Amino acid sequence: MIIILKENPDPAQLESFMAWLREKNFDIHESSGESHKILGLVGDTSSMDVDLISALDIVESVRRVQEPYKKANRKFQPEDTIIKVANTQVGGGNLTIMAGPCSVESEEQILKVARAVKASGATMLRGGAFKPRTSPYSFQGKGVEGLRLLSLAKKDTGLPIVTELMEIHQLEYFEDVDIIQIGARNMQNFNLLKEVGKQDKPILLKRGMSATIEELLMSAEYVMSEGNERVILCERGIRTFETATRNTLDLSAIPVLKKLTHLPVIIDPSHATGKADLVPSMAIAAVAAGADGVLIEVHNDPQHALCDGSQSLRPEVFDDLAKKLFKVHEVVSKF
Amino acid sequence: MIIILKENPDPAQLESFMAWLREKNFDIHESSGESHKILGLVGDTSSMDVDLISALDIVESVRRVQEPYKKANRKFQPEDTIIKVANTQVGGGNLTIMAGPCSVESEEQILKVARAVKASGATMLRGGAFKPRTSPYSFQGKGVEGLRLLSLAKKDTGLPIVTELMEIHQLEYFEDVDIIQIGARNMQNFNLLKEVGKQDKPILLKRGMSATIEELLMSAEYVMSEGNERVILCERGIRTFETATRNTLDLSAIPVLKKLTHLPVIIDPSHATGKADLVPSMAIAAVAAGADGVLIEVHNDPQHALCDGSQSLRPEVFDDLAKKLFKVHEVVSKF
Amino acid sequence: MIIILKENPDPAQLESFMAWLREKNFDIHESSGESHKILGLVGDTSSMDVDLISALDIVESVRRVQEPYKKANRKFQPEDTIIKVANTQVGGGNLTIMAGPCSVESEEQILKVARAVKASGATMLRGGAFKPRTSPYSFQGKGVEGLRLLSLAKKDTGLPIVTELMEIHQLEYFEDVDIIQIGARNMQNFNLLKEVGKQDKPILLKRGMSATIEELLMSAEYVMSEGNERVILCERGIRTFETATRNTLDLSAIPVLKKLTHLPVIIDPSHATGKADLVPSMAIAAVAAGADGVLIEVHNDPQHALCDGSQSLRPEVFDDLAKKLFKVHEVVSKF
Amino acid sequence: MIIILKENPDPAQLESFMAWLREKNFDIHESSGESHKILGLVGDTSSMDVDLISALDIVESVRRVQEPYKKANRKFQPEDTIIKVANTQVGGGNLTIMAGPCSVESEEQILKVARAVKASGATMLRGGAFKPRTSPYSFQGKGVEGLRLLSLAKKDTGLPIVTELMEIHQLEYFEDVDIIQIGARNMQNFNLLKEVGKQDKPILLKRGMSATIEELLMSAEYVMSEGNERVILCERGIRTFETATRNTLDLSAIPVLKKLTHLPVIIDPSHATGKADLVPSMAIAAVAAGADGVLIEVHNDPQHALCDGSQSLRPEVFDDLAKKLFKVHEVVSKF
Repeated sequence: MIIILKENPDPAQLESFMAWLREKNFDIHESSGESHKILGLVGDTSSMDVDLISALDIVESVRRVQEPYKKANRKFQPEDTIIKVANTQVGGGNLTIMAGPCSVESEEQILKVARAVKASGATMLRGGAFKPRTSPYSFQGKGVEGLRLLSLAKKDTGLPIVTELMEIHQLEYFEDVDIIQIGARNMQNFNLLKEVGKQDKPILLKRGMSATIEELLMSAEYVMSEGNERVILCERGIRTFETATRNTLDLSAIPVLKKLTHLPVIIDPSHATGKADLVPSMAIAAVAAGADGVLIEVHNDPQHALCDGSQSLRPEVFDDLAKKLFKVHEVVSKF
Repeated sequence: MIIILKENPDPAQLESFMAWLREKNFDIHESSGESHKILGLVGDTSSMDVDLISALDIVESVRRVQEPYKKANRKFQPEDTIIKVANTQVGGGNLTIMAGPCSVESEEQILKVARAVKASGATMLRGGAFKPRTSPYSFQGKGVEGLRLLSLAKKDTGLPIVTELMEIHQLEYFEDVDIIQIGARNMQNFNLLKEVGKQDKPILLKRGMSATIEELLMSAEYVMSEGNERVILCERGIRTFETATRNTLDLSAIPVLKKLTHLPVIIDPSHATGKADLVPSMAIAAVAAGADGVLIEVHNDPQHALCDGSQSLRPEVFDDLAKKLFKVHEVVSKF
Repeated sequence: MIIILKENPDPAQLESFMAWLREKNFDIHESSGESHKILGLVGDTSSMDVDLISALDIVESVRRVQEPYKKANRKFQPEDTIIKVANTQVGGGNLTIMAGPCSVESEEQILKVARAVKASGATMLRGGAFKPRTSPYSFQGKGVEGLRLLSLAKKDTGLPIVTELMEIHQLEYFEDVDIIQIGARNMQNFNLLKEVGKQDKPILLKRGMSATIEELLMSAEYVMSEGNERVILCERGIRTFETATRNTLDLSAIPVLKKLTHLPVIIDPSHATGKADLVPSMAIAAVAAGADGVLIEVHNDPQHALCDGSQSLRPEVFDDLAKKLFKVHEVVSKF
Repeated sequence: MIIILKENPDPAQLESFMAWLREKNFDIHESSGESHKILGLVGDTSSMDVDLISALDIVESVRRVQEPYKKANRKFQPEDTIIKVANTQVGGGNLTIMAGPCSVESEEQILKVARAVKASGATMLRGGAFKPRTSPYSFQGKGVEGLRLLSLAKKDTGLPIVTELMEIHQLEYFEDVDIIQIGARNMQNFNLLKEVGKQDKPILLKRGMSATIEELLMSAEYVMSEGNERVILCERGIRTFETATRNTLDLSAIPVLKKLTHLPVIIDPSHATGKADLVPSMAIAAVAAGADGVLIEVHNDPQHALCDGSQSLRPEVFDDLAKKLFKVHEVVSKF
């Protein structure tokens, strides 16, 4: 950690600060520039709080040299984390395809979609039971009944289930759920992260709409620091000025994350783009860029399913896309 | 609500959609452009879900004419909401000054700061007991003990208390708290919003770092739709590409919010800028622009209080700022 | 074009506005909502200025239904534009690989790199002679001498040249240049766009760091409206809050642009990411997503070439990447 | 300047790099952390190119301690720059009010507006003759004729003129112009900056829509490094995700700039907000925050002037605003 002090720092404050640093057993390298004194701290600085230090009157700026996350850090675990989910695996060269409807609506719907995506090669079924909605007046999901329908579809197809948890109390209904999704809006709901860190299920952690990659990894660290190290990271678009897509899918997050962490990385082009016709090329690009999988919205009957949206693919389009994903994955696997 | 259909929509889908709209008792105006058919819906569309409709295959885009929030909407309540808190009022021409430390640390600290800010004219004491921190390894606040210390300071100074609630379960310790703060990271934690919507205390709702003004109002609507209409909105900086400040303080949110809603608007220049030397001018600008108040971090002993940061003002700087705020408020009150 | 009027518009202004619209020979559809009157204009609205209309006192908002660009619009030219450059083609299913150093530095350097990238399969040589630099104290490129060296390399390898034009006067030295690049910072230098619109050479138009896709197309329209319809669009990263990469590469621009325009689309992962180790996966993803080509920085001797940067690939890494790009292109060409 | 090297840098490259640095006569402080070696360079690093150095294979990151601008830097000129323009002054405690129409349209219009704003206390007349427009099909300004009309209004009212220069060749018509405006889209048109750096007129340099404050200062440095040190900086809104305003006015740029530079700072709330009803509160906030002035669009006859927009104030609204600005300026001048 490098600390750049302000010009002419108050000597009493500087002394007090140096004493505080020495107490923490850092090896301190001092170096004086023309205008600024610079401190280099050697030692484990992951528990040091950059905000707190940069907040000091005598400090101009602080720069970490080492990352502030440990359990998620590839430096401390060079080999990829592979997460076993039922009879499939996420990470380690496997292509994970999570597919299903935005919201679970009826037994007929979820069974139809689940069977279709399974036939196309999906490895997991996703579907929303508890839905975070911007408006209190919008449909908030089928809740517990939605989870029951997902279980039915799981029994029918054998596909493991991924679904979103919005609140700690809902955990009691999640027994049959295989992967707990933490949505983008809850990426920094730290109490929820700690709670799922105590669960014995893999966590699909979605990147917040305005979260940096480092913040995503710090949120993964929250989960892991509580004992649950089975975290799957999911990029789903970030908020920018561009309005042609709902959000801007940040595919460069794939190689960045692959360098920084050993955790698997999944891409969600459906929410990122918000438009069905952009989903296939972005899903293909994600796999080509080295993602461990994709999360794709698939609906069955667009005419009657109002909640299925322009971001959802019809089963036949998904089937075509899945074929392409397997082909591209096969090619890039050999790179 | 205006719905622009795609060129050459599928007739069966269109018929099904029109039937669905008619069922909802909207008055539908059709108009055909050179390439696109356009539908104008007349009636109460606040329960209509723009995302759902724009998700339909035949829909090109949807545009609301009326705002999707009702209880927060100035159109339905033209006069300003004034919120009584103990012996002070937020809104209605009053200048609210919430001041205090980032984190409550000790009895000595909170009493010192509380007495100092009261003497300078602050109308409320703010202080963090439960702290949302990006890293699981950072200090997470004093918790329940912090609330106890805030109560002591309240008893001592008579200042009402504002402090952050991170999770529903913490509510049991909030009896003596006067205003419940919902932090920026929880602005779209919809379950938490619903819960505080059932409480009988004013809510200070902070704008998320990447939330639009409309989303902020929709989150206020979540609280209000559960019965608690005493919501105070707080702008605290949005995330942009600029790195000279921690976030970009969006002061234009003041006149925008004043036009759209009757709820009071508070500005937090401390978190927005992240730097003490930028706080005074931004606080003055906020009051000049018509804000109902400001939220200012004040610390006592910078040498020993590591958690107080460069964004916190010393009491003597705060005292000087408060005097200026009252002067500017007096001038602009007559405008 | 849909114009939503404010509630209770001033009758005299409304009358004056309606008269003005009728003069322009639009077919006007009026429709009255509960609170707002809505006008639908039918006719060619591409010359209508949205800003001007939304600026009127009586107008609440304006929404285009038709795109404001014509020559760049796929609706008016459904088939892909294919641009012949020397003995190669951009667009139409060809994979264009523009490669070369950030800056031309010496005869030895440019010849070495040009021969290397040609051997690896690059179809064009790129290299900077006039360099836009943020600081006036930074190296501004070799200028005219740089162009001379590029010509030498072109003669030696047969590769067509792409290089940046910063100012109209430099055109006199561009005789031997095959494609004129307009840099991101000049994307809205409208006088320069008009001038290159009069040239008889293809234009590589880079998207501005904070330009929307529609603005990129409007800038292409500037060039095309002057007669030069050979425009190649280039996405090179947009400015967001994320700092892990220099900019955020917006690969979803590929399918969006492919839908909106017939012009070829090239991706520049070198400038977007700013880091060599992120370039290969992003270049592969770009080709997988349907880009017509990539623009890759390649340097020769990292030890002595200070201007070649961490975003430049060594020739052997580029050679490996080129092989992968051809393989992925072959696979996705059959999709 | 602090250079953090990658872990285990290639020894030959490191040696070559160190030799290169020593050649430049820097005093080099080395310090070795647990994983990374760190170099501190002492000496004048303003001519060092951060991009070039961070581009080296062995470099992890580079951080400036000193700002890269010199002439614009307050450290090298602590006292405020005051710019004399005709009989008025910009900076140094004066309140500059530049007001006038978006576009010059007719003699009648410009005279009416000029007389009105002068009567209200404006110190300069602004008006567009050459207009940068996103669409080639939009009105591009009256050009040379517009400049002639501005001169007439100057002669009539005595107000100095501010107007935009888009291209070097237009300079020949700018003889009677008092301040040359460089628009936001040309903030990094480096050739244009160099050219106006050779002129003997003050420059009003507008911040690019996605330019950082440091980039704005580097662009000022371009002008100043050519000899013209009379630069006025203008914040006019930055591009963010928020859509309630056209851009987000970054008022915190005022105290940030005041700390970093001695140049005067003007705020343009008209372009930033894009809405007339937001302009007054933002103009007042700007003056309260310590801006040296504001740039306000004023139109005369909204019914007939289509180019005057919702962001322009009517003369009577401007008159009321000017009174308020003088009052607030009087109060904050004593702070």
